[in-house]
Amino acid sequence: MQQLELQALETRKPQSTKTAIMVIGGAEDKVHGREILHTFFYRAGSADAQIAIVPSASREPAIIGERYRGIFNEMGAKRIEVLDIRDRDQCEDAAVHEYLEVCTGVFLTGGDQLRLCGLLADTVLMEKLRLRVQMGQITLAGTSAGAAVMGHHMIAGGGSGECPNRSLVDMATGLGIIPEVVVDQHFHNRNRMARLMSAIAAHPDRLGIGIDEDTCALFEQDGILQVVGKGTVTIVDPGEVSYTNQPLIGATDPISIHNLRVHILSYGQRYDLHQRAIIPTG
Amino acid sequence: MQQLELQALETRKPQSTKTAIMVIGGAEDKVHGREILHTFFYRAGSADAQIAIVPSASREPAIIGERYRGIFNEMGAKRIEVLDIRDRDQCEDAAVHEYLEVCTGVFLTGGDQLRLCGLLADTVLMEKLRLRVQMGQITLAGTSAGAAVMGHHMIAGGGSGECPNRSLVDMATGLGIIPEVVVDQHFHNRNRMARLMSAIAAHPDRLGIGIDEDTCALFEQDGILQVVGKGTVTIVDPGEVSYTNQPLIGATDPISIHNLRVHILSYGQRYDLHQRAIIPTG
Repeated sequence: MQQLELQALETRKPQSTKTAIMVIGGAEDKVHGREILHTFFYRAGSADAQIAIVPSASREPAIIGERYRGIFNEMGAKRIEVLDIRDRDQCEDAAVHEYLEVCTGVFLTGGDQLRLCGLLADTVLMEKLRLRVQMGQITLAGTSAGAAVMGHHMIAGGGSGECPNRSLVDMATGLGIIPEVVVDQHFHNRNRMARLMSAIAAHPDRLGIGIDEDTCALFEQDGILQVVGKGTVTIVDPGEVSYTNQPLIGATDPISIHNLRVHILSYGQRYDLHQRAIIPTG
Repeated sequence: MQQLELQALETRKPQSTKTAIMVIGGAEDKVHGREILHTFFYRAGSADAQIAIVPSASREPAIIGERYRGIFNEMGAKRIEVLDIRDRDQCEDAAVHEYLEVCTGVFLTGGDQLRLCGLLADTVLMEKLRLRVQMGQITLAGTSAGAAVMGHHMIAGGGSGECPNRSLVDMATGLGIIPEVVVDQHFHNRNRMARLMSAIAAHPDRLGIGIDEDTCALFEQDGILQVVGKGTVTIVDPGEVSYTNQPLIGATDPISIHNLRVHILSYGQRYDLHQRAIIPTG
């Protein structure tokens, strides 16, 4: 039934107003062009947008929540609620559930991805959100920690300045919105190539996606990713890997990995997640 | 004639005592196991080694020259000379030429690669060294700046913490010992993946080689590279690249590059430079 409604909705709308999943590398422009936040606003329905801001990753949820509220308010969203969930019990709040049923855009702020997952993972609320996103009824955006949680496997923390090794990355379980990817953010800004490669060596059945600051990997419903913003999206594809050693978790032995395929994509460039291939610019 | 002598020499020696080109990522162990420096000593002829130390990249050539002299002396080299070339005129010094004709190992220290190239590039001395290395008569090692100069195109400097872009790397001309590679050193230690990718985007006919500290890419005469030491050697192969933009030199626009092949090699692993392929471990 919802699927039928969705199809009816799609036929009425031009391509670019469809819902999407927006994985943002942190530090997105909040002041000047605000291109990424504008794109979220637009994909959430523009003047009809009913937006939920989830600041739960942050230790200052009130401040960050109000900041985004001000931005989307200025853009002209129809309704904006900050869902300041600080306790798993709040995920059962009837008012929260009611709003999730009508809202068209959910924005996960930055902070600590373990905190965010600790509050939301395996709740009925999260299941409802995932379903509505999958049905194309909600545009979901996450920035920084809010981006990190998108995959099934999640990078919870790690370092830089070392060759790939298992102690360079701490893995945890994410919210599984796009289960097949492992996301890293603030990517080239914080020199995270070696840590993403370490994560992918441990999970070679996934695809690594490194997203720079003020940059967004925008996933359409059909699994096509497009780059929006100032930096790059780096894809680390282990599909053809011919060898990798598997040091124990926490070991500092170098990880070797042969035949990785790496793409650095910039503005407007597109990648097919299912085909694992660049879409040539027409 | 020299070639015949070389062949005669080769039949007398087991495989591993052949001369090699050793490209060292800087900060090689000088105190404990000294594995890389021992390998150089061995490949230069062990007790028969006549070693030339070239500290010209350094601003403290006397100190660094004596440090390496002490190390190779302790190992038992037959003869060690520090060729403290501080002026291009010294490259014509008869005593220097005479020693180069008999020596079996040349070691280029760290420092500033532009300084080293400024002193040695396009001199008769350098031409003689290159020839003797190519003939397999000299084992040549370079660490840090001494490694950077190995390719035809040389990374003279650059930064980190940014997505690949042309202003992230300063290119110059190296000594062209292994013309087909672009070398970067202190590689993962200083987060240089984005700068090496920027260099390779500008020179997609070359192969990028990033070498970690206390790690060596040891090139045999037949173009097989083997990893020695604690870290990794990263190979960035643009052979299958399907697209790259070409921002102007110094531009900060992101570089996009599609279908790079990347290998992270660790201890003992081998790569065929001519075939551009990993040699599977037997």
